[in-house]
Amino acid sequence: MGDWPDDRVAGDDIARLVEQARELQDSAAALISRTARDEDELRQRVASLESHIQSLRNSKHDDKLDVELIKATYILSEGDAAAFLPSKSHGSFLRMFLGPINVRATRKDVQLKVKEEYNKFRDRTSFLFLFFPLLLLMLRSWIWDGCLPALPVQLYQAWLLYLYTGLALRENILRVNGSDIRPWWIKHHYCAMAMALISLTWEIERGSDCAQKQRGVQLFLKWAIMQGVAMILQNRYQRQRLYTRIALGKARRMDVVWGETAGVEGQLLLLCPILFILQGFEAYVGVLLLKTTLAGFFSEWQVITCGILLIIMAVGNFANTVQTLAMKSRVKAKIKRGRSRQELNQ
Amino acid sequence: MGDWPDDRVAGDDIARLVEQARELQDSAAALISRTARDEDELRQRVASLESHIQSLRNSKHDDKLDVELIKATYILSEGDAAAFLPSKSHGSFLRMFLGPINVRATRKDVQLKVKEEYNKFRDRTSFLFLFFPLLLLMLRSWIWDGCLPALPVQLYQAWLLYLYTGLALRENILRVNGSDIRPWWIKHHYCAMAMALISLTWEIERGSDCAQKQRGVQLFLKWAIMQGVAMILQNRYQRQRLYTRIALGKARRMDVVWGETAGVEGQLLLLCPILFILQGFEAYVGVLLLKTTLAGFFSEWQVITCGILLIIMAVGNFANTVQTLAMKSRVKAKIKRGRSRQELNQ
Repeated sequence: MGDWPDDRVAGDDIARLVEQARELQDSAAALISRTARDEDELRQRVASLESHIQSLRNSKHDDKLDVELIKATYILSEGDAAAFLPSKSHGSFLRMFLGPINVRATRKDVQLKVKEEYNKFRDRTSFLFLFFPLLLLMLRSWIWDGCLPALPVQLYQAWLLYLYTGLALRENILRVNGSDIRPWWIKHHYCAMAMALISLTWEIERGSDCAQKQRGVQLFLKWAIMQGVAMILQNRYQRQRLYTRIALGKARRMDVVWGETAGVEGQLLLLCPILFILQGFEAYVGVLLLKTTLAGFFSEWQVITCGILLIIMAVGNFANTVQTLAMKSRVKAKIKRGRSRQELNQ
Repeated sequence: MGDWPDDRVAGDDIARLVEQARELQDSAAALISRTARDEDELRQRVASLESHIQSLRNSKHDDKLDVELIKATYILSEGDAAAFLPSKSHGSFLRMFLGPINVRATRKDVQLKVKEEYNKFRDRTSFLFLFFPLLLLMLRSWIWDGCLPALPVQLYQAWLLYLYTGLALRENILRVNGSDIRPWWIKHHYCAMAMALISLTWEIERGSDCAQKQRGVQLFLKWAIMQGVAMILQNRYQRQRLYTRIALGKARRMDVVWGETAGVEGQLLLLCPILFILQGFEAYVGVLLLKTTLAGFFSEWQVITCGILLIIMAVGNFANTVQTLAMKSRVKAKIKRGRSRQELNQ
């Protein structure tokens, strides 16, 4: 018997608690192993059905059977069974930052929450993206006498680095969760991360001839403003397009239709020229940066590298936009052909 | 009938596939909802038992009953039931970078894999941590004539930024997965992230008097070398300690015993003085940085901020080491008291 008056009662109580803890441990172990078994079984069934569907899709059929096959794929990839489709590899970017942790959500509602939050993150940041560099350039001519001080510019650049890292991580997570985001957009954000990092090491010159020497930074800020405009336009267009597609029942809600993929016809006519102009401007800023280096105002490696990165991003963006447009027109032609054949058959 | 010769066979086949896809969708939905229900139920039982145990632990008992209560807690928190304990909040750092994705692993073996990978990551990086700044300082006196060029230093600083971001993300993930890593260590890595970011914007002076002007950077590199030594010592000590504790059956393998927590007695006698010396050196470098600013060699805000950050980190590390040692000696005293009382009772 113990030293405290209520120890006998407490002793019984505690023995019962230990017993309960053991029971719970057993139940938990049983539940975990049963769930793992059931999930594995389902995973095998889903994988075998999917490979069957794929092999049939590769052989030729008429359009009606094709539609049935698409329906089967759709049921498998859009519903709850999608959670048991073989997972896309996490990719080295996620492994580099997070280690081997699983970021795939089983439940569709969680996946959609992730997608929603990603959209909100983009909305929030695109306005800041426009606002920060605009403010810096305005203050430069109003208050700072044509000469940017280092600290505000560097704060902005650090924010850019965080933003692009966050976007790249989120997009990789979306990809693991079944979104069909185009690989180029993630690569584009790796380039932008590199550029933000490099721009941090970029010396912000002070002194009498700063206006001349800060030309590189100014160009960078102007590019950022254009990028902000592009992001806002794309966000609006894509959300609208996504909702249209969801309403039409065609969409996989996990799709991230970043940027230049096409959709709502009328809006696209507006968006496409703007995107091409922005891409042209991006390449132009890149060339200007390289030219300032050649002119010998400064020969910092940062300026050269940023110039090259901008040109790579512009060319990549352009190629992706054109590819998407070409794919769209092919799909359209196929639909048209299908229709005219149906008419012939009738 | 279609246009292709094998369409009737294919048609039957495809109809069956669509049917199978529907069945799989139903099975998946059923499995997901059943698992969610079972897990919720278990979660409630675990939570109620845990709060019961906690309320009993807060009231006074003799040591024997205390041990029983600790046993119950241990069964609950170490076994499979731990997966159903209320999850620690993901924290704003993870939300900021990853969004609302769940990074908690249900299965104990996955959690341990994450922990293992974290240890390996620390091992890999701690040697680089020692190697990079050492190489820079050696090349400085051998090849670079006492004057560090900007690019290699900045590459090293960018690597530091990645390293600390990776560590902070991984430690937050470990915390969500039930590791009892001390909150200070994560905060310490936030400070180090800030310092790496700031050091990137730090101008690496060139020219004739660079040896004088680069004093800040040199101090920073020397601090990094000391940090590398500390990391390697801690990694060795902690892994050994962790394995000892696992072998003794006392340990929760998810524990991250970062740095200054104590354990294997003999090694601790070696580790503690080294840690205190390193912390002293850290504070000293911080003060030196502040002094160079006061001496007016350069008045860059980066140098001041890094100096302050170093002093904060040194003080925080010191306070945490002392706290851990104090806690250890309390625990020891309690065990001793328990033993002598047992002897008295006999």
